[in-house]
Amino acid sequence: MDHALLINRFAAEQGQPGWSRQRLLHEALRHAIRSGSLPPGRRLLASRALAAELGWARNTVIYAYEQLASEGWISAGRRGTVVSARPASFVPAAGGARTLDQVRGLELQAPAQAPLSRRTAGLACLPVAADLAAAFAPGVPALDAFPLELWRRLMMRAWRALSAAQLNYGPPAGESALREAIAAHLRASRAVRCSAEQVFISDGTQASLDLCARAFADAGDKVWIESPGYGGALTAFRAAQLRPIGIAVDAQGLAPRPQDWLQHRPQLIYVTPSHQYPSGAVMSLERRLALIAQARQHGSLIIEDDYDSEFRYDGPPLAALQGLGADIDTLDSAQPASDAPVLYLGTFSKTLFPGLRIGFMVVPPERVQALHHLLARSAPRGRAAEQLALAEFMREGHFGLHLRRMRRLYQQRRDALVAALEQQLGDIAQVRGASAGMHLALCFEPELGLDDQALSAAALQAGIVAPALSQHRVGRRANAWSGLMLGYAQVPAEQMSGLVGRLAGLIRSAQAGRLFVK
Amino acid sequence: MDHALLINRFAAEQGQPGWSRQRLLHEALRHAIRSGSLPPGRRLLASRALAAELGWARNTVIYAYEQLASEGWISAGRRGTVVSARPASFVPAAGGARTLDQVRGLELQAPAQAPLSRRTAGLACLPVAADLAAAFAPGVPALDAFPLELWRRLMMRAWRALSAAQLNYGPPAGESALREAIAAHLRASRAVRCSAEQVFISDGTQASLDLCARAFADAGDKVWIESPGYGGALTAFRAAQLRPIGIAVDAQGLAPRPQDWLQHRPQLIYVTPSHQYPSGAVMSLERRLALIAQARQHGSLIIEDDYDSEFRYDGPPLAALQGLGADIDTLDSAQPASDAPVLYLGTFSKTLFPGLRIGFMVVPPERVQALHHLLARSAPRGRAAEQLALAEFMREGHFGLHLRRMRRLYQQRRDALVAALEQQLGDIAQVRGASAGMHLALCFEPELGLDDQALSAAALQAGIVAPALSQHRVGRRANAWSGLMLGYAQVPAEQMSGLVGRLAGLIRSAQAGRLFVK
Repeated sequence: MDHALLINRFAAEQGQPGWSRQRLLHEALRHAIRSGSLPPGRRLLASRALAAELGWARNTVIYAYEQLASEGWISAGRRGTVVSARPASFVPAAGGARTLDQVRGLELQAPAQAPLSRRTAGLACLPVAADLAAAFAPGVPALDAFPLELWRRLMMRAWRALSAAQLNYGPPAGESALREAIAAHLRASRAVRCSAEQVFISDGTQASLDLCARAFADAGDKVWIESPGYGGALTAFRAAQLRPIGIAVDAQGLAPRPQDWLQHRPQLIYVTPSHQYPSGAVMSLERRLALIAQARQHGSLIIEDDYDSEFRYDGPPLAALQGLGADIDTLDSAQPASDAPVLYLGTFSKTLFPGLRIGFMVVPPERVQALHHLLARSAPRGRAAEQLALAEFMREGHFGLHLRRMRRLYQQRRDALVAALEQQLGDIAQVRGASAGMHLALCFEPELGLDDQALSAAALQAGIVAPALSQHRVGRRANAWSGLMLGYAQVPAEQMSGLVGRLAGLIRSAQAGRLFVK
Repeated sequence: MDHALLINRFAAEQGQPGWSRQRLLHEALRHAIRSGSLPPGRRLLASRALAAELGWARNTVIYAYEQLASEGWISAGRRGTVVSARPASFVPAAGGARTLDQVRGLELQAPAQAPLSRRTAGLACLPVAADLAAAFAPGVPALDAFPLELWRRLMMRAWRALSAAQLNYGPPAGESALREAIAAHLRASRAVRCSAEQVFISDGTQASLDLCARAFADAGDKVWIESPGYGGALTAFRAAQLRPIGIAVDAQGLAPRPQDWLQHRPQLIYVTPSHQYPSGAVMSLERRLALIAQARQHGSLIIEDDYDSEFRYDGPPLAALQGLGADIDTLDSAQPASDAPVLYLGTFSKTLFPGLRIGFMVVPPERVQALHHLLARSAPRGRAAEQLALAEFMREGHFGLHLRRMRRLYQQRRDALVAALEQQLGDIAQVRGASAGMHLALCFEPELGLDDQALSAAALQAGIVAPALSQHRVGRRANAWSGLMLGYAQVPAEQMSGLVGRLAGLIRSAQAGRLFVK
């Protein structure tokens, strides 16, 4: 068939708007070859001749030919440009069409046909966080109270100061200015024992957890998780194919039984001692010291997720578990003086804003170098502008100021929420874990036998996000927690009583057995 | 001992500059309790009295007492505030000081004492990328040619337009404006078959690889990697505890043997078909079609890492493997018409700048929903400003313009490098893989028996980064590649001849056996 005709017909039938002439020519000839209208061995017009026929620039034709040649459809030889013989592998290597048995065989064998791996398939079924702008979605700070204008100025300044060289990959542990600022803050306000060298910048707590799970544990290793506990941690550990063991939480925090240490020696122990997620319990000193001593003895690493403890309303923030190592050493001479075996995790998602995607880890000194090497090899970093702007924000005292402001704001909101809950639900529910953080736990009296998950689902239908405590259970072992998790940081105080009223309505109807949830 | 005296002495001996009075009081009393100078049961001065003695505000004392109480050191009772009985767990739960045997036992059992997990320990030994600003460090674009001023303006604009609500967590797959822009670009310039729904924004190719390894494969699953191949992929797969199988690469790209499919059926296949890393080989059409057909038949997923193929100098960019699925379907009616089983990976680290930390994946339609759910649960996203600025950069045509500019610039640099290499080393080495990308492979004639790793080390000492091809070997199976990987994108053309001169000097001395490397 005449080349130009063939091309014009293809253009009319299958051409796409926005295709360059070269693209059109390439597609048309490839289609003609595949469909057989240009059979193997057939010689193509010389580029000059075709260009003339089409009235197009010769380079257009040359490039299209070159591309077809580099893709193997045509080849240039002494006879000119000819259509290549069809590669053997146009038909599958098995040879011709497959039989039904072959097909069945494939379906049986092919794990890749499942949309996700086994280790993550389960996770897709977990409830996905609902609209995070709604009350009482936990873990979302008061975004409208963030000094956005100031932040914009600092970002502009950081970008203006940035050199072309700083567009390159950054230091594996993050910008040292930011690591210094974080270490100084942690020492002063969280009693964390650390130098800047121990601080590693991450893309947030989830990234920190992913790293901890893979860098400090192997598939099949056991990891303890508080039950009820934080789903994000469970996700990270499952994805790393660790074996999560749910350990019950009571009013003093994680409560492992002696046999847990013997039967389920943990490689990692995930805890939220300052404000347990979701119950809000504060781990007692006795439990903290016991946990450190036992972890040392069993060679376990504690992951302390200190996600929202900057906000403590009844007295100053509690000292971090990480800094407690020395307290034991002074009292047990048999123990070498050393830091507690703790990976301390922090984030700016709660103190500043979630979209920033900057968190950090504090790693024991003896692990710093190895982790640094690992990250240099496996976790390219950058984002110099954001990190330097944040360092500036901290150095100039804006961070401390913002924390104090938010502490006051959240305390008002907490007080309003607690008052409304006690007034409207005091007879059947108890407020727990309200001394710190951004959420509290509304616990139901067991004898009521309320189904907190049904209530949570009903609340969601009513536009209120209030995760059920029992939903956070890890493992099969039962635990006593039944109730709702209420985040108040983003909810104006004046709205609390109204929102609690709607919640109370649902709970009363559930109590009266008048609540039906599909 | 008198409280005030005790506190003043502690302040003098162990006080830290910058401590608030409250912090000082808390530390002093905690120390006194731990050291025994305030024994269990001992009553503390009433806060008013101590405040008066110290001449401090009473609240300072009250808060310090509250903190000590909340930490469990003291308790308030009828008799007033008294030092608590020492918690049982002050001494390790094993009971008292441990015997030497116990200590030895600990050292033997404690796997956590190793700085890293087994799966990552090996990786820390891999060579860490040297100074990336140096010639001929591969994979670094011409940062000084990036339109930084324009980018600053777009960032400012994005930040100014950002609302407080956009500081919250972002959509799990990324900002839709950016996904749209990427999909449009890939369809037009890479012949990728995709809609915006299939595009998932990531923090870069390493993050995409980590996700692929965990979302689409389980520990123990086999993953094929090109040998020689990309170390970052090996790292991601090892961290996910997959079993990497090195598959030899020749001039046509990945060259699996029939028995490889039978003996080592891969769950994942990692390839760089447009410009093989590190050899620069372009995968032939025959190999591409065979790979897709075999992957379909064996239920394997192909990971196409299309890291630098936007830059092709001899003709237009090659079509991506991902879009080739249909070419088979039209020719083998037994195959259902469907996309190739390909996870297509792209990044802006090469086309814009590495510090941006934005990459993307294109996922087959049947896996989109499951992955979306997984990410919603496990990978909090944000960084709206950067994503929207990038979407703008693409929509306004700056991206296409920048690509064309860099293609011209890199072509000049490539031409200069190739010319210098052929002039100074043409007799003993061959240039490969120079038709596209940002690096080429300088391959040594086998009969020379040059040790490319020794040469690479010597070059590094001379300030030239030129990774050895044999260093990228995956697995034990030998392969024929010996030579150096030379990145030219960031090296001005006028410097090529001088740099190649220094390299040539090293190679000549190695040839003459005069090269000694410590």
